[in-house]
Amino acid sequence: MKKIMFLAISLLCGMNAIAQEYKLQAPDKNVSTTLFEALQNRHSVRDFSTKEITEAQLSNLLWATIGVNREDGRMVAPTAMNRQEVSVYVATKDATCLYNPKEHSLTVINMEDIRPILTGRQTSVGNAPIFLIIVSDSSKFGDSTGFAELDAGYVSQNICLAAAAMGLGTVPRAMMDRDAVKKALNLGEKQLVVLNHPIGYPNE
Amino acid sequence: MKKIMFLAISLLCGMNAIAQEYKLQAPDKNVSTTLFEALQNRHSVRDFSTKEITEAQLSNLLWATIGVNREDGRMVAPTAMNRQEVSVYVATKDATCLYNPKEHSLTVINMEDIRPILTGRQTSVGNAPIFLIIVSDSSKFGDSTGFAELDAGYVSQNICLAAAAMGLGTVPRAMMDRDAVKKALNLGEKQLVVLNHPIGYPNE
Repeated sequence: MKKIMFLAISLLCGMNAIAQEYKLQAPDKNVSTTLFEALQNRHSVRDFSTKEITEAQLSNLLWATIGVNREDGRMVAPTAMNRQEVSVYVATKDATCLYNPKEHSLTVINMEDIRPILTGRQTSVGNAPIFLIIVSDSSKFGDSTGFAELDAGYVSQNICLAAAAMGLGTVPRAMMDRDAVKKALNLGEKQLVVLNHPIGYPNE
Repeated sequence: MKKIMFLAISLLCGMNAIAQEYKLQAPDKNVSTTLFEALQNRHSVRDFSTKEITEAQLSNLLWATIGVNREDGRMVAPTAMNRQEVSVYVATKDATCLYNPKEHSLTVINMEDIRPILTGRQTSVGNAPIFLIIVSDSSKFGDSTGFAELDAGYVSQNICLAAAAMGLGTVPRAMMDRDAVKKALNLGEKQLVVLNHPIGYPNE
């Protein structure tokens, strides 16, 4: 996360924080863990060490969430009626960013550590160096219910499997102060904060 | 699917159809496709050949949905608050069965080909030799909404990735005559038919 730290410092020195986009290194799709090994290893981890993860690991994790896997911009996770309404945010100790799948980049949302808001009372997850946050825009489905949550499930399982494949731990968490998270992420009324995923090395 | 056919014939000859349980062969967890290859290859397939899939393939697909990956009976897909409310059904030309993850077995629900009900007007998917159906029991969450759909998303992504890893095609489909499917599966009022997945060889 050194580059994120560098970005944070640059921004504090007067660059335009909100418009700033940080291009991530390309994901390494040669991770050797098989799908069936990842399925076998998937389990929920709720206790993390403070060990940082690298930008290379973050790049892989983000691509695995809703990364582009075809030239037409379609993604590793399907969405109902191809509405592509899911967004993924990253919370680190230095900043909170939005993932842009088409550019494989991050846009800085704020320069705050919102991990304590995500952690809430479940302090055992608080050491995780990053949290991914899955947001679904329910306005894309009119009056139909359930699709926003359904589509978040695809992305969440991708995170679970990618973490398992990379020797990291995670757990999908629905319990959090949603209003506080929405405020921190500058979300609109119809954008649902469905889940957060602390990710790091298991403390075991 | 020869053994399922044999089972079907046995049942028609007077065995107790409803109580009959068919033990599947063990899943082969040595499928060599990596997780990242499966993510790269995932895309929706809506046109299938009539080529049958084998029991070995079905066994792998079913284990990948909600199969048990730990001694305490927990599964490859997480569920909200560990409610384990998701069920998976298999529809073939010979029978419709419920998957029992703990026993890695099938229980026959009926001896009918319900694939036309699942296909509806989207006839291009009708050739698929099997459909998997994802059902969530919303009664496990009281008045909370969205969890039943969320949990179905995890299972659906497992199906998408397992199919991609095994050279098969699939697409998650939410549009169907839910009342007809509920009736065919003998479901209770609170059991939601969330998705169906035609699975087979792409017709390309």
